[in-house]
Amino acid sequence: MENNIKTRVVGVDISIERTTCAVIDIRGNIIAESFFSTMDFSDINSYVSTLCEKIMELVMANGGYETIRSVGVSAPSANFVTGCIENAPNLPWKGVIPLAALMRDQLGLAVGVANDAHATALGELAYGSAHGMKDFIVLNIGVGLGSCFFSEGHEHHGAEGFAGEFGHTCVAEGGRMCTCGHEGCIESYVSARGIVQTAQEVLAEIDAPSLMRNQEKLSSRIIAGFCDQGDELAIETFRRTGHILGIGLANYASVINPEAIILAGGISRAGKWLLDPLRESFEKHVFKAMQGKVKIFVSNLENHTRDVLGASAVAWDVKEYSLFK
Amino acid sequence: MENNIKTRVVGVDISIERTTCAVIDIRGNIIAESFFSTMDFSDINSYVSTLCEKIMELVMANGGYETIRSVGVSAPSANFVTGCIENAPNLPWKGVIPLAALMRDQLGLAVGVANDAHATALGELAYGSAHGMKDFIVLNIGVGLGSCFFSEGHEHHGAEGFAGEFGHTCVAEGGRMCTCGHEGCIESYVSARGIVQTAQEVLAEIDAPSLMRNQEKLSSRIIAGFCDQGDELAIETFRRTGHILGIGLANYASVINPEAIILAGGISRAGKWLLDPLRESFEKHVFKAMQGKVKIFVSNLENHTRDVLGASAVAWDVKEYSLFK
Repeated sequence: MENNIKTRVVGVDISIERTTCAVIDIRGNIIAESFFSTMDFSDINSYVSTLCEKIMELVMANGGYETIRSVGVSAPSANFVTGCIENAPNLPWKGVIPLAALMRDQLGLAVGVANDAHATALGELAYGSAHGMKDFIVLNIGVGLGSCFFSEGHEHHGAEGFAGEFGHTCVAEGGRMCTCGHEGCIESYVSARGIVQTAQEVLAEIDAPSLMRNQEKLSSRIIAGFCDQGDELAIETFRRTGHILGIGLANYASVINPEAIILAGGISRAGKWLLDPLRESFEKHVFKAMQGKVKIFVSNLENHTRDVLGASAVAWDVKEYSLFK
Repeated sequence: MENNIKTRVVGVDISIERTTCAVIDIRGNIIAESFFSTMDFSDINSYVSTLCEKIMELVMANGGYETIRSVGVSAPSANFVTGCIENAPNLPWKGVIPLAALMRDQLGLAVGVANDAHATALGELAYGSAHGMKDFIVLNIGVGLGSCFFSEGHEHHGAEGFAGEFGHTCVAEGGRMCTCGHEGCIESYVSARGIVQTAQEVLAEIDAPSLMRNQEKLSSRIIAGFCDQGDELAIETFRRTGHILGIGLANYASVINPEAIILAGGISRAGKWLLDPLRESFEKHVFKAMQGKVKIFVSNLENHTRDVLGASAVAWDVKEYSLFK
């Protein structure tokens, strides 16, 4: 290690199903990876112990401890400012978990945590389509609707690290009940669950044949598949979804004036069925001086790769010596 | 001038009625002021010549040219990034006016321009209630509905300097026609014109006596006065206005996570008639983790003073040597 410059980081992606650890170099090459099941650990302390053991095993087998600058974690409901996972509804650990501090104490390395939208944004900036951009929005459309934005080259966290809660902005007063307890949040329309609910409304409203009628359990992925087969009611479902998302994003963009809006997450893979109505509605509603100027596109990083790359970008975003604060 | 440190700036506030020039020191003391009528000049070149003459007269009579660091201008539709006034609907000069460059060439001083909301925000940060805040929103509610926000201590301009167009976010699809040509913009509900239109709707809907019925020409100021006299329909008018603004600001705050929202402009002087329903609606709609945490209050800088102080803060925000770029 000439000059003691460390050229690798560890990226950790925590999702409900599994935890992925990876050693990643400065160019975004994944040197090595390992996985384990997140849900096996109902106790946070045993989870953190296992996670740190897995990280150390991986690091020792791939270049050694001295090569690692820092650790980045992408997790639901993670707050970069506090280093905590805060009241994550879908993870086994309740309340506020000081994950960065717990890991740092066991690893002796600086650790940063960020929620999935923030990690995705950092990954897009470091290795993806946002490279070189100063002002942009990233949207993660999946189980929930996460977002974050960059302001003049830095990530905007807000006063307490809660910024980017676009999913819980109101698009329909007195509308659908959201998981957060409010009515009319855009997430209750634009998310895996929201799209299925829209499909059910479309099926009830429009008396026409549809592949969706024979389906025992609908999902946004199945509905997108039916769009590809030309199913009109499936297409109508995504048309309504894209229309609402277009209004919401137009409002978001009118306030931020971004260069681009990057879509990631499972739902973004529906492609044109979502994007075409989204763009039409966006252009109709965005502030006039921005019309035709905001690029809207789906992340070009692969889904699996994006999560650990995003986590590795969080690691680079942390001060190496924040350990000694 | 020891060390050649310049301790004064010139602040210029351009409003439709008049242009105010002031020499202001580092603590926000207004040393001297002068005014002239903006609308007397239909030609931008003769306007700029007169403006620069007035500035030089004021400067020469109050400490001299060597004391002045830079010039800041607050003007409608001004863009800090480009230094231009861009298509201002209410000023006599059409198209894109490179005001900063024109003034800089005549004065030999660095010149910055910003729209009224941005200038107000800089003024609040330098001399007002936002002092020390890193993340906050400023709203200017008057003829239009302007806004801007600070992100981690710096003003967010966006990719092209158009950020903060909160007034043109959609709150009612297919709603009122806005001056921008879109339907349902929040400005068409929350602005001088919007409030009068709401009053007319309230008068038509509710069959009750009201001081507003005897009024030949209603204005938001007159309606606020009737609220003070206990007029129920005037109060209902502001209740509806505050309710809509509360939803819009809750959405804005959910994305930005500000420490505070500061209200300025003529309409903000309606006080509790606007603020009480606004706060109620805001708390009902904002992202749950932010409930009870975002301070919402009216600017404590006086209206007239605020405009030139804001302009002077723009002057401090400009690089002294941007002149030589």
